[in-house]
Amino acid sequence: MTFPTTPRTTPSRKRERVGYERVTAYAIIDEALYCHVGFVVDGSPRVLPTLHVRTNETLYLHGSTGAAAMLAARGEGLPICVTVTHIDALVYARSWAHHSANYRCVVAHGRAHLVTSDQEKWRVLQALVDKVGDGRSADSRPPTAKELTETAVLALTLREVSVKARVGGAIDDEADLSLPHWAGVVPLRLTPGRAEPAQGVHAPVPPYLPAADHLAPARV
Amino acid sequence: MTFPTTPRTTPSRKRERVGYERVTAYAIIDEALYCHVGFVVDGSPRVLPTLHVRTNETLYLHGSTGAAAMLAARGEGLPICVTVTHIDALVYARSWAHHSANYRCVVAHGRAHLVTSDQEKWRVLQALVDKVGDGRSADSRPPTAKELTETAVLALTLREVSVKARVGGAIDDEADLSLPHWAGVVPLRLTPGRAEPAQGVHAPVPPYLPAADHLAPARV
Repeated sequence: MTFPTTPRTTPSRKRERVGYERVTAYAIIDEALYCHVGFVVDGSPRVLPTLHVRTNETLYLHGSTGAAAMLAARGEGLPICVTVTHIDALVYARSWAHHSANYRCVVAHGRAHLVTSDQEKWRVLQALVDKVGDGRSADSRPPTAKELTETAVLALTLREVSVKARVGGAIDDEADLSLPHWAGVVPLRLTPGRAEPAQGVHAPVPPYLPAADHLAPARV
Repeated sequence: MTFPTTPRTTPSRKRERVGYERVTAYAIIDEALYCHVGFVVDGSPRVLPTLHVRTNETLYLHGSTGAAAMLAARGEGLPICVTVTHIDALVYARSWAHHSANYRCVVAHGRAHLVTSDQEKWRVLQALVDKVGDGRSADSRPPTAKELTETAVLALTLREVSVKARVGGAIDDEADLSLPHWAGVVPLRLTPGRAEPAQGVHAPVPPYLPAADHLAPARV
């Protein structure tokens, strides 16, 4: 199952790094804790980081009902570009020009709409809470009617999507291979530290909190 | 020294999380290995991850001369929004609604221009290489005239900039404090792994490669 290509998702260069597999895109989206959402305000671009969660073919973002993107999405919806990026390694080549980074990135285009059904909103907020700990939604207080009203949820159906990734080691020019410089990669990974309980917490640290092997496995 | 506020950098909500200190913005920008750049193509937003480096009051991005943003920046320059984000912790509150993340984020608006001076381009590429290892530019081959021509550098003068950050622990409603659920934070940090040399490399691992304590210190 792949996403159909469109002019916006067809690269002008380095085509070998671009793909359209749904399963690959979903894995990159689901592993990421946050994304960057871009939209246009009075003709100017605006890019903000935000938390997200995916359910089937829909990517959900949430925010205060008073946030700029949420206000702009009322009515006809809001054209957005959502970009999800993992940096996996720094790549050191023997020449400046071939220094690079390994990464996995999903870019999704489309018109996002506000979720109006309270039931769908509830499901999304539950999924967002469970994303930071499987079972966390059952181990914390669900929203009141007022809290539900104060939270806006944007839905983007994933239709126009591309995946871009760089993997592997340094790619040096043949003529540079004999240079004396070190070359190779340094893997990077987003690593959780020790959980720090709030004052007055008597419950033990829950088993569902992210541990060092849950997040962003380093891939070279 | 602060950035002057403009309508684009004045938040409509959570004003207490927003600041304009140059030194704070610079520290966030410099610590980040990559940013997300947003621009408008045929009226639609586009957001891409890219490597960056700052020198004084200028933020530089680079790419192939054939990349979409580089082509679009020819002539009058390109209105862009550059966003730099660090995620520092996941925040677990006793209620779904107060779950959050600690983060530090810089948003910079302005018109980016292509760097035309070869000397300035050279300086930027040198700074980009030295960013992933202090002294790396002296320990790898500088660009040829052809490589320099194939690389485009975009410059954004940092004038319209805001900083947004969340720090600290869970903020629960008073009435929720007696609930039995665990609350607190899990720090996150981008951690380098062991350097992996390319085939045929005889040089020892250089001391300037990032080690576990160089990148993105966890802050709660």
